[in-house]
Amino acid sequence: MCMSIREKLSRITGLKQTVLCVGLDADAALLPEGFGHTPGDVVAFNREIINATRHVAAAYKINTAFYEQYGSRGWAALEATRTLLPDDAISIADAKRGDIGNTNNAYARTFYQTLDFDSATVSPYLGFDSIETFLQYPDKLTFALALTSNIGSADFQRLDVGGKPLYRKVIERCCEYRGAGEIGFVVGATHPSDLAEIRSYTKSVLLIPGVGTQGGAPDEVLAANGGESALVNVSRQIIYASSGADFAERARENAEKFAAQLRIIA
Amino acid sequence: MCMSIREKLSRITGLKQTVLCVGLDADAALLPEGFGHTPGDVVAFNREIINATRHVAAAYKINTAFYEQYGSRGWAALEATRTLLPDDAISIADAKRGDIGNTNNAYARTFYQTLDFDSATVSPYLGFDSIETFLQYPDKLTFALALTSNIGSADFQRLDVGGKPLYRKVIERCCEYRGAGEIGFVVGATHPSDLAEIRSYTKSVLLIPGVGTQGGAPDEVLAANGGESALVNVSRQIIYASSGADFAERARENAEKFAAQLRIIA
Repeated sequence: MCMSIREKLSRITGLKQTVLCVGLDADAALLPEGFGHTPGDVVAFNREIINATRHVAAAYKINTAFYEQYGSRGWAALEATRTLLPDDAISIADAKRGDIGNTNNAYARTFYQTLDFDSATVSPYLGFDSIETFLQYPDKLTFALALTSNIGSADFQRLDVGGKPLYRKVIERCCEYRGAGEIGFVVGATHPSDLAEIRSYTKSVLLIPGVGTQGGAPDEVLAANGGESALVNVSRQIIYASSGADFAERARENAEKFAAQLRIIA
Repeated sequence: MCMSIREKLSRITGLKQTVLCVGLDADAALLPEGFGHTPGDVVAFNREIINATRHVAAAYKINTAFYEQYGSRGWAALEATRTLLPDDAISIADAKRGDIGNTNNAYARTFYQTLDFDSATVSPYLGFDSIETFLQYPDKLTFALALTSNIGSADFQRLDVGGKPLYRKVIERCCEYRGAGEIGFVVGATHPSDLAEIRSYTKSVLLIPGVGTQGGAPDEVLAANGGESALVNVSRQIIYASSGADFAERARENAEKFAAQLRIIA
């Protein structure tokens, strides 16, 4: 009955035979024809995307930015979307939060209690104590940013600190922890050779965004990941596969295509 | 008529003769007697705190964590609190956000358009492109985290990168920017000697938390800051000055005391 989050992930990716994560990052301004432009329309759109992709989605990732830009109405849409996520997919709040002490407790409470996500992303700049708060929740999977998919990732993440890049220092510091929660890392698909190198020193779960619109290739990512536990996120190439009335059909097709490309080799 | 955000800050701190920023970080569970424990009660409490402190508050800082822990109802309380903030104080969203591309645009829109704060805090780990998005808003003051007040700030922020600590690298990279918005930095009051050293290479506005409960001493902070543009935040020692019916009176007394200790020397 009682499964760790890592077992749950492994069971889901095994059943669905893919590590595809679908990013529900819809902007109310960009919904297909037939929808209005309110946060409520985003929820209606998400419902159709979820129904069209749930058979091949090992996870859903919700980026809080797209919701909170509409204020409390956006947060209500985030809550409504959370309740639509199926149990047989890992639910990820891509929130990139991080603060200190009591404040950080409030953030962890937000995503792991109030919204009851399986997983959340955190930004490590404040130090390990800001990540540890999230790790105190058993059976939750907390992804710390390590090497992100943007150009600016070189500014600080790749700086040399005592013979290794900062992102490696972040990974190593986090991996010293043994506690209730599970630690994972965000590593962008746009750096496959770095991903391979990162796999030489950690077997932690990786959340890998950047496939699709951002340019990462599924086969290169899978090869670099070497069969370890991971989720690979695709957002726009699924949710915006068509701006016409066939959006859900096209989302299904693209999700199935990416799921097959991101197939687990048993 | 048209004032830059830096001129506005300087005018306000000049008029009020203090650099005190009051942190509206109330937790619904910890409100004084006479209040319930809902997000609506937090707004009612904030109203009284604002009325009791506005004559000596150069700024108000709202930490989003304390609001979003209650989900969309919490965000409604955040919106309501924003509308209570007086025009003659700088409004700061202490959100520590940071993401990439389109996603980051949505965060900047959240705090600078939807909620219309004067200022927001951002976390720099993702790189300068994640900060630049916020800096594209004219007349807004974006504070990047540099050296925070927690113990874990040593984990990454102080790592040596080419002969200088990472936080200095963050400050220097951000200060290369010349654009519409104003860049400032968060430097904890718990490190006065580092603050003095930081003042040797930047005259940017600093947001300095950590005075009061966290242990920073106002006179040491002012001395280390050397008269440059800054805001010094106090939260708990003002908002939680009393848990009794006299909470507003005691908040006023403590705010006046801190304002005097954080007096601008003309």
